Amino acid sequence: MTVAPWVNYRPEIKILDCSIRDGGLINDHAFEDGLVKAIYDTCVAAGIDYMELGYKNDKKIFAPDKHGAWKYCDEDDIRRIVGDNDSPLKLSVMADAEKSDYKHNIIPRDQSVLDLIRVATYIYQVPTAVDMIKHAKDCGYEVSINLMAISTVQEKELQEALDIFAQTDVDVIVLVDSFGVLYSEQVHDYIKRYIKAGESTGKEVGIHAHNNQQLAFANTIEAIVAGANRLDATMGGIGRGAGNCPMELLISFLKNPKFNLRPVLQLLQDHFVQLREKLEWGPLVPYNITAHFNQHPRSAIQLRESDHKDNYVEFYDRCLEDA
Amino acid sequence: MTVAPWVNYRPEIKILDCSIRDGGLINDHAFEDGLVKAIYDTCVAAGIDYMELGYKNDKKIFAPDKHGAWKYCDEDDIRRIVGDNDSPLKLSVMADAEKSDYKHNIIPRDQSVLDLIRVATYIYQVPTAVDMIKHAKDCGYEVSINLMAISTVQEKELQEALDIFAQTDVDVIVLVDSFGVLYSEQVHDYIKRYIKAGESTGKEVGIHAHNNQQLAFANTIEAIVAGANRLDATMGGIGRGAGNCPMELLISFLKNPKFNLRPVLQLLQDHFVQLREKLEWGPLVPYNITAHFNQHPRSAIQLRESDHKDNYVEFYDRCLEDA
Repeated sequence: MTVAPWVNYRPEIKILDCSIRDGGLINDHAFEDGLVKAIYDTCVAAGIDYMELGYKNDKKIFAPDKHGAWKYCDEDDIRRIVGDNDSPLKLSVMADAEKSDYKHNIIPRDQSVLDLIRVATYIYQVPTAVDMIKHAKDCGYEVSINLMAISTVQEKELQEALDIFAQTDVDVIVLVDSFGVLYSEQVHDYIKRYIKAGESTGKEVGIHAHNNQQLAFANTIEAIVAGANRLDATMGGIGRGAGNCPMELLISFLKNPKFNLRPVLQLLQDHFVQLREKLEWGPLVPYNITAHFNQHPRSAIQLRESDHKDNYVEFYDRCLEDA
Repeated sequence: MTVAPWVNYRPEIKILDCSIRDGGLINDHAFEDGLVKAIYDTCVAAGIDYMELGYKNDKKIFAPDKHGAWKYCDEDDIRRIVGDNDSPLKLSVMADAEKSDYKHNIIPRDQSVLDLIRVATYIYQVPTAVDMIKHAKDCGYEVSINLMAISTVQEKELQEALDIFAQTDVDVIVLVDSFGVLYSEQVHDYIKRYIKAGESTGKEVGIHAHNNQQLAFANTIEAIVAGANRLDATMGGIGRGAGNCPMELLISFLKNPKFNLRPVLQLLQDHFVQLREKLEWGPLVPYNITAHFNQHPRSAIQLRESDHKDNYVEFYDRCLEDA
């Protein structure tokens, strides 16, 4: 234990930008190529380790006329932005259990520009997720498992899931606070538990925090303190509902000289001031309220899209009734 | 150590609302009576322990034609809002070292509706602050000492100041992160140190956090974990620059049934949606930047008032030059 560990940095720590993937949940993944390219260029210039371009989800389930390209991340669409990705930045997509036709859409790595497949699962889909991990590993990718909505998962079931993941070839296990309800003491406990589960088979642990209670950045720091080395963040904190851990704050905290804050600020100035006029995200009061009740933010998103978006008390009463 | 301490609450914890005092730094303390009364009524309804109405600052230094009533908190102005304060809510004002004619303006408690005097000081004003503490205690008040801009204070000088405060009759010593730069590990260290300094003479320790890095709420939680029992917060997080720890999040966290979230939501709905159209506060990018450099937010405030308020990169470069 050093006297002031925050002065230095841990070289093992890697950042994944999921601006397009999580931010796409606001606009059905219909971002213009120019913005996707700008974020890609920023990630490269800022020394970010991974960029997640979107989902590998099934066009039979998500109709292509209602969603943008980043819902599916076809190889041609990705290459339109990144070419052969002649950069140190690694590229990622997320595949949801039951929403992805992974056996057809996740192709061998030597035919793809992608490096990392992130499998997202709810607790009741774990066996499907395990099959997805196996497929992606067999294809040659680095693979991560993201167990979502952790604040609704019973401890015994979580332990079972962690034990199952530990026996797979997955590389990273990510703590996902989908509802943005965790406080720092809880994050610390979870990360320690994830690390313990994965250490015998050499897994890294990550964190994906949501900002419903203005804690996404703080909880990411707490996860670092507890030993997590894989961090999700987004430019300007963009993401569904309350959004995510803001990249600009995280890079400032991390202090590893391989990261550069200035290109991120340039992106925010050039693109995100305008974007905020079109899309809404951030820790607004309705998201504070759904987090208070450990509820999915979808009701708060609906409220914000309605003509009574600031009726906080009526919304609070409704969430309380539903609790 | 309990297995999940966040399920319960610590009854010793008390909240101080400083919406008008700190928020008044945005608008020269020119809030309308209606808003001050609404916040007062909300504090009472929400079970908040203290409300800070403003500063007891000197009219010779701060011209009355340029500032609202809450810069001075004359007894008559306070009583216009609260009458004789027939409620359990205690009332507070802040007096700045060198900016307050405290010997004339802080009157005996039995002639005042006030309960708590908070003395604010920079490290180079400590002897003046000690004299102010003595005066306020002699007048019969509960007294707090707020050592500002802690992130610029050398450790040895901080220890000297804490030892001096420990020997006074002050009741509470407050950690004040004026520039909003502290991370949780630092907050933990500081609070432990403040507690150690004050414990032999029975002082409580408090926290006043700023939100420059979206950490005001998180750092307040960390201070609680480390043992602080006196917490500053503001409605909607209102406050100079990036603002403060939001009351609505803090009450949700604390879980003490004496606190009520619903009246706070009502206030935000009825008054703060409009207020946000007139006044700007919150953890905007320029405040992230000044915190990154451990600088006072005044340059960021000036930027936000200019016609190039979103020129983040130029502002970053300027802060870097000044660093």
